[in-house]
This record gives sequence, C-alpha cells and structure tokens, in this order.
Amino acid sequence: MRHLHNRLDLCSINTGTLGYQTPISETIEAVARQGFGAICPWRRELEGVDTAATARQIRDAGLKVSGYCRSTYIPALDCDQFLANIADNRSAMDQAAELGAACFVMVVGSLPQGSKDLERAWAQVAEGTALLLEHARATGMPLALEPLHPMYANDRSCLNTLEQALDLAEAVEPETTTPLLGVAIDVYHVWWDSKLAGQIARAGRLNRIFGFHVSDWLVPTSDFLTDRGMMGDGVIDIPRIRSMVETAGYSGTVEVEIFSADNWWKRPIEEILSVCAERLQTVC
Amino acid sequence: MRHLHNRLDLCSINTGTLGYQTPISETIEAVARQGFGAICPWRRELEGVDTAATARQIRDAGLKVSGYCRSTYIPALDCDQFLANIADNRSAMDQAAELGAACFVMVVGSLPQGSKDLERAWAQVAEGTALLLEHARATGMPLALEPLHPMYANDRSCLNTLEQALDLAEAVEPETTTPLLGVAIDVYHVWWDSKLAGQIARAGRLNRIFGFHVSDWLVPTSDFLTDRGMMGDGVIDIPRIRSMVETAGYSGTVEVEIFSADNWWKRPIEEILSVCAERLQTVC
Repeated sequence: MRHLHNRLDLCSINTGTLGYQTPISETIEAVARQGFGAICPWRRELEGVDTAATARQIRDAGLKVSGYCRSTYIPALDCDQFLANIADNRSAMDQAAELGAACFVMVVGSLPQGSKDLERAWAQVAEGTALLLEHARATGMPLALEPLHPMYANDRSCLNTLEQALDLAEAVEPETTTPLLGVAIDVYHVWWDSKLAGQIARAGRLNRIFGFHVSDWLVPTSDFLTDRGMMGDGVIDIPRIRSMVETAGYSGTVEVEIFSADNWWKRPIEEILSVCAERLQTVC
Repeated sequence: MRHLHNRLDLCSINTGTLGYQTPISETIEAVARQGFGAICPWRRELEGVDTAATARQIRDAGLKVSGYCRSTYIPALDCDQFLANIADNRSAMDQAAELGAACFVMVVGSLPQGSKDLERAWAQVAEGTALLLEHARATGMPLALEPLHPMYANDRSCLNTLEQALDLAEAVEPETTTPLLGVAIDVYHVWWDSKLAGQIARAGRLNRIFGFHVSDWLVPTSDFLTDRGMMGDGVIDIPRIRSMVETAGYSGTVEVEIFSADNWWKRPIEEILSVCAERLQTVC
C-alpha cells in the first residue's frame, strides 16, 4: 500500500465535501493551495460556468480531475423519460471529457416515484449503461459505476454491492482487458460487505477499479444522506480497504467525499481541506 | 402463494409492532381477539413475569409462538464477555423452549464499542453460533439467524445478507436435511438485494427458512431504527417476496414486525392490530 504521508499529490477532493459554499473557481484554488493532486467537481458547480475555462484553470493549478459527479438517474416510468435521462448523461460525459476527468461517476438511480418494480429498474440500468457505453467508446470517457449503500436502494441506486456492479460491467462490456466500464469503490457504501475482499480482487483482475473514495461511518448516524464522517471519526477500517484496493492494482487517487450538513459543511473550506489533508496522511 | 384473506390464523404479530405499551398478558389477549394465529414476544416483556404462566396463557388463547426475540449480541472485546453473551443466549433459548417458540431469533451483533474489526466480529459470530447450536441440539430449540439491513452493520448485526447468513448456517451445521440453524427473512432487511431470489430458493432447498417478517420501507425514512412502515405504505413489493419464500417451501406464519416510534407506536394497540390485519389480507 502506498504511503500518503507527504503525498497529497495522490489525493483528491470531491467538492461535495466542501458543501458548495464557494464558486468552482475559488474551490479549485483552495484545493490546489492545500497541496492536493486532484479534484472531483459536481455538475451543479459547472452550471452557467465556461467549461473550457474551468478545465484550463484546473490544469493551470496543477490539478488532475479524478472524476466528474455524477450521472442523471437512469430508470424512468416511461420510455421518453428514460431516453431523456440517457441524453442528459451523454451531455454530462461530453462535459467530463472537456474537463479531462479520469471517469464519469455513475449513480444509476432506482425506483421511479410510484414504482415498486426493482427488477424493471435493474433492467433499465443495464440497458441505459449499454447505451452510455457506446458514447464512452465514441468519446473515450470511462464510466465508473458506483455501488451505493443499500439504504439508498429505493431512489439513488439499485446497484448496492460491488459484486452487483461488477456483474453488470461484465455483462454489458464482456471480455476486454481495457474496459471503459468500471467501478468507483467508496468505503462508505461497501465497508459492511462480507464479500468485499473477494470482489475488490475481482475488480482488480478485470482492470475495472476507476476510483476510490473515503469518508467514515459515524456511530450513531443521524441522517441517511448528509451525516458522513471525516476519516478516523467512525468505524470503517479504511487502511484495510485501501490496502485491498491498491493490492488489486489500483494506482489512482484517494478521493475524499464527505456529505456533512450539520458539521463539516458549516466550517470554512480552508478548515475542511486542512483536516482532510491531515487525516489522509494519518488514518487512511 | 397462500391467500391471506380470512386467514389471519396464518399471520403473527411481533409484539415490537405494538410499542410495548401493554403488559404481555394484555397483549396476548388483544392479539388473539383480533384473530391472529400467533405471536412473537420480546424478552423484555417476560422480565419479572412467570414464563410458564405466559406460555399457558398463549396456548389457552389459541395462539402459537412464531418466534422469540431476540439474542444478546455475540461479539465482545474480551473472552469473558463473549462467554457471558453465549451463556445469556442459552438462558434465553431455554425460555424460548418453555414458551413453545418455533424458533429463537438471532440478531447477532457486530463491532463492540471501540472496535473496527469486522473480521473478528464475523469470526466471533461463527464461533458463538456453533456453541449455541450445541444448546439447540440439547433443547430442540431452532435458531433463526436474521440478516439485518447493512445500515445496522456497525452495531446490531454483521450478518447483512441472506447469502451471508446461509453461508454461515451451512458452515456451522453442514449436511443435514433437518437443520436446527436457519434464517428469518425480513423484507425490510433484504428487499434491496439483487441476489434475493436465488438465495431464498437456496434457503428453501436447505429447509432453513424458519421465519418470514413483513413491514415496509418508507420514502423518506426519517430514523434508522424506528421508522418502519406499515405494509403497503412503502416501496417493498411484499407479494413478490412472499411468493418467493412460499414457493421455496416455507409454510410458517407471516409475522408483522414494525418499529415506528413516531407513528404506529403512538396509537392504541387495538388500532395497530386492526390495520395490520387489514393490510395482511390486502397488500401482502
């Protein structure tokens, strides 16, 4: 496993960690000033902003783009909406390419409002991913399927384990040693899984690990979405999981992604970044 | 799949659904009055109460005991505490036997306070389950491992999928057609799982389905523990899962288990029971 001490160049900040307090132009400078090697912006931050200028600013600041967050949910009650969702994702992939992102992060969605039909959601996600893979081939933009914790299975994602995401990737894009369809492994979503070690090894063999995200699981957790913990403040054995991921061949960034409405988001971004930097070097 | 219309005799009430508002003696009479065929009491309700008298009252009321809730958590930081946990569970199993329970429900626990070592928790659960299986053989009391939703992986249970629970059952008690170690399948905990259909079929082949629990997943869910929904009020396709379970050979009760601090627990138990009865017959 790589040492992270004095190696913030191996680390990335997902801007969701900062609570969207500042415009992307300021966020980029703050992340670079702290010494991080990469950034993962959100689409909402690029709205009304010149993508090419942002890409240039990121490059000039010496940062890489570890990913671009994130896909529009795929499943829909009707075909028109489904196709609109796919089209929206194609546009976002183009933007990801313009930013020079290492991958486009796919949070695939789940049950459309009023539906209880998980099997249909799974089928739509498989179909939609296949359509987006064609666009990935056309643009060279890799797709990182991010399995989400099962507590998000009703709305955010019907992909809830690494095994399920890899099964999908292998079904949609079989038999390749240079896949464009991979996974983003976020410790918050997968830490509980008894099959994790085996599935990380499998993901590595398939060359499908496109991203690795860290945060922590707080005890107690007060909110389903916005009560993630800073690394070291919860119960996840992060070094154990990072060791698995890097032993499996992953050499990309360690990306911090913390949604924390009542704690970290209330602090100045310089403080958040400083604590991230310290924890990455000491407890990850 | 069995019809539940006019068949409340096939249905059970887990007393946790009623919020522990009344002494067990009153609860028994209320459940029987509504026409249910069974009840699943909690240990806390038997504290300071004569177990034999309660067992007699349940029988006299015409009720079966679909299960007894629930095990003391198994994992511990030190060996003395681990052994104390096992001893505590043996006593509870004896009580379950005295009540005539169909099974003793095992919520196995997870990380002891201060620990991040999931692998150790898994190992302790396997070891502890093997010890309790010996007591199951001595007493004839079946053990139902209940996999809990992964959002409980830090404290309540490090068994989080049906597959994991069945793997454990097969490892601890291999090669039997009359197992004493099985599973309780609760739709709230397993509904999201893409491997559910296959694992329910497997559980059936192994004769290891000892219990089936229903409630619903509310959108949004406001609390990790006590915001379960009444059947029909959430997104779980309960008939789909019940059909799988019964096709797999399960012929036990359909047990309602709803923890709902801010809604159902605030209502009179007669009202809760009446709504349970209606929903069991119409949406399950």
